[in-house]
Amino acid sequence: MPAQIGVTGLAVMGANLARNFARNGYTVALHNRSVAKTDALLAAHGDEGDFIRTETLAELVENLETPRRVLIMVKAGGPVDSVIDSLVPLLDEGDIIIDAGNSNFVDTRRREADLAEKGLHFVGVGVSGGEEGALLGPSIMPGGSKESYAALGPMLEKISAHVDGEPCCAWVSTDGAGHFVKMVHNGIEYADMQVIGEAYNLLRTGAGLEPAAQAKIFEEWNKGELASFLIEITAEVLGHVDAKTGKPLVDVIVDSAGQKGTGRWTVQSGLDLGSPISAIAESVFARGLSSQRDQRAIGQEVLQGHEVAVDLGENFVEDVRQALFASKLVSYAQGLDMLTSAGKEYNWELKLDEIASLWRAGCIIRAELLKDITKAYAADEKPANLLFAPAFAEAIGAAVPAWRRVIATAVQLGVPVPVFSSSLAYYDGLRSKRLPAALTQGLRDLFGAHTYSRIDVEGSFHTQWSGDKTEIEAEDTH
Amino acid sequence: MPAQIGVTGLAVMGANLARNFARNGYTVALHNRSVAKTDALLAAHGDEGDFIRTETLAELVENLETPRRVLIMVKAGGPVDSVIDSLVPLLDEGDIIIDAGNSNFVDTRRREADLAEKGLHFVGVGVSGGEEGALLGPSIMPGGSKESYAALGPMLEKISAHVDGEPCCAWVSTDGAGHFVKMVHNGIEYADMQVIGEAYNLLRTGAGLEPAAQAKIFEEWNKGELASFLIEITAEVLGHVDAKTGKPLVDVIVDSAGQKGTGRWTVQSGLDLGSPISAIAESVFARGLSSQRDQRAIGQEVLQGHEVAVDLGENFVEDVRQALFASKLVSYAQGLDMLTSAGKEYNWELKLDEIASLWRAGCIIRAELLKDITKAYAADEKPANLLFAPAFAEAIGAAVPAWRRVIATAVQLGVPVPVFSSSLAYYDGLRSKRLPAALTQGLRDLFGAHTYSRIDVEGSFHTQWSGDKTEIEAEDTH
Repeated sequence: MPAQIGVTGLAVMGANLARNFARNGYTVALHNRSVAKTDALLAAHGDEGDFIRTETLAELVENLETPRRVLIMVKAGGPVDSVIDSLVPLLDEGDIIIDAGNSNFVDTRRREADLAEKGLHFVGVGVSGGEEGALLGPSIMPGGSKESYAALGPMLEKISAHVDGEPCCAWVSTDGAGHFVKMVHNGIEYADMQVIGEAYNLLRTGAGLEPAAQAKIFEEWNKGELASFLIEITAEVLGHVDAKTGKPLVDVIVDSAGQKGTGRWTVQSGLDLGSPISAIAESVFARGLSSQRDQRAIGQEVLQGHEVAVDLGENFVEDVRQALFASKLVSYAQGLDMLTSAGKEYNWELKLDEIASLWRAGCIIRAELLKDITKAYAADEKPANLLFAPAFAEAIGAAVPAWRRVIATAVQLGVPVPVFSSSLAYYDGLRSKRLPAALTQGLRDLFGAHTYSRIDVEGSFHTQWSGDKTEIEAEDTH
Repeated sequence: MPAQIGVTGLAVMGANLARNFARNGYTVALHNRSVAKTDALLAAHGDEGDFIRTETLAELVENLETPRRVLIMVKAGGPVDSVIDSLVPLLDEGDIIIDAGNSNFVDTRRREADLAEKGLHFVGVGVSGGEEGALLGPSIMPGGSKESYAALGPMLEKISAHVDGEPCCAWVSTDGAGHFVKMVHNGIEYADMQVIGEAYNLLRTGAGLEPAAQAKIFEEWNKGELASFLIEITAEVLGHVDAKTGKPLVDVIVDSAGQKGTGRWTVQSGLDLGSPISAIAESVFARGLSSQRDQRAIGQEVLQGHEVAVDLGENFVEDVRQALFASKLVSYAQGLDMLTSAGKEYNWELKLDEIASLWRAGCIIRAELLKDITKAYAADEKPANLLFAPAFAEAIGAAVPAWRRVIATAVQLGVPVPVFSSSLAYYDGLRSKRLPAALTQGLRDLFGAHTYSRIDVEGSFHTQWSGDKTEIEAEDTH
């Protein structure tokens, strides 16, 4: 009996996806560059379902029903192209190549276009949920043609996470949309972790709360509007004691995190789109700074703190919770705003309610909040920004006083809160009647004749700064 | 008599560079796609020096001494490639093509490599100073081969700005280094303008100081450690009254500024380099947010402010000055740190003292400060970060108390200060003994088995979170 799907690349993510398909009743053909991994998978989990062992890509392809579905799970970049090149001569028109790795959506767009010319479907699929999600039900964000989704979607939906019987998998839009949405998911994930880190740092440095005590606080927070996977596991990590030293594990881990791949790409794409995803960017930069360990060692010695002891107030823990919540909302608002811009730029019909619903379960940023976000975008009148949806305008508004207090406190205490403060600056920017960009435009006109618009007349204007300072209407070519 | 240099692309920047060469005694051959611009230039300024009028690129090339020097000043991107393609068949080995526009350094690297194969020199040159600088003496940042600099450098040095007889022009390093350095200059320029804007906004919204009053303040500031071209022209713009309305000009300019080109590229490149240029990024995002006018109109209506009236203190204006200065130092530190990383990544021998010295005059960010930066990097022991140089550690340290006060105040007043607060978060991050990145690493290990390093033992470790929570040493492949 031929397999319904072939999986090539059997490191842990590929292996777990293959097992997930098999455990859901599909016959899965397996391939890996080194056959040892295939055999190891079969030895450990071969009894979980119907697997077909193959040693070459040709053999993998021979064992598939048509249209063939070949899922690639290899390192993003060159390795994906290389597997595609090997597969193409083996496939027939209408077959489907699926890239389930964290590829850059620009590559996915290119590959989809190239393979479409050859009569092949190429489906870039975002998969989130880590190793466990891949095995037990991830959040799945497929792009590619609608036609390919008809042949592939039902299988992906079956292996995905479910909420109230609904799969966390739906066709996102054409070509690279799936990988784009997954990328933005990861960007939000960066910010989500960073705001948790800032809250933790404030409670630790400001309020002197040890990790064990904080584990209980995060457990408590997980019962309210912050309820989410990341808050849940924060409690778990903070509560864990290192066996070797008897210290909290978090205290023996090197405080240095890398930034690359999807987090970095999110910010770079946001810049291309002109989308102000400042909070997400700050979370990426915070990792970059943390990994500059040599500089930090010097900074600790030579930079003066001048910290100010301030009264934390009676409800500091609750204040911090609200600041975390408000900042988190901003990072979601920025990520979703970026999706709106991307939809226009790349001609994707992204449905934000559906995308939010895909993130309700299975993925790393899964949270109760996403149900409300789904609702906000399912309304007849779509909000131009998540924060403008009545429920969210009210929720973040309620948190504003605490948010301001916490940041003012952090700034005085010398505790870095880049995402808390960036989020608030975004919020205050969005509601400012006037921004100093008017001055910026004036300066640019003075030194570069870049011209400016006026609030009272249409057109582009230039003041003749080095002449008599009269204003002239300018050609709109600068 | 043949011309020493040919200029193609006679919009205002190209025309002014051509005039600058001619005014310095060089014979300049002129070319423009439409000959009308060439004739207009000659009609208006033909008496400033020796120009040769040409109608085609072939004619331009025929009129040049060898090795030929052809300077292109056209729109970055495709137009540059197109002019190069037209020039190549007309040139001989050893000739030099100069791109003086704001090209992306990645393109410059590609073009340099392509043309080197054909025996031609390609020199990407960063030019800053706006229209006036181009005419009277810009800051010039040339990349390309050392060999090409021998034939071209003296001419560029002659037309550049000078400080105490020294030209603000020096060979930066190979291939795209010139355009890279110019890009970072522009990134710093974005931040420089944004911190001025934040100071202005605080003085206006917080202290109620009208533009005319602020013009005087900025004039005063221009006499101290902030002395710089941008502070000087801020005073000029703020002091200017719109003739049509009798209002301050800054109040009739639309408060919306675009972000694109070099500012955006700086942040994208910083991300590629893992360099935490958060303050520069915030200044780019602040422009993006300012231009989302539709969203802002809604935000003004629906987002709650909950501003808190706070005592500004006795020295609010001076506090703001110090906050501006400290934030400005951070953006310079970040830009220079990015240059350090780029030098390693692209094998450029960038000399930061020389680069800072190029920016002392001619360019938009010219400032007294750059003399001190030049000194700091001319020291035998180069600081690992600008802020670690003793003079700067002291200068920024002195500003820290005011910096903290001002941001805490802005946060309570509801005035957005994205770069002020991002800069302080960077400063506090750089001097923190522990950052919450340790928690981030714990979370990543839990959901994705990404492993972590320990502070007490070499190696990569993974806690078996879903098992018995013992720790295992991991292969370093995640």
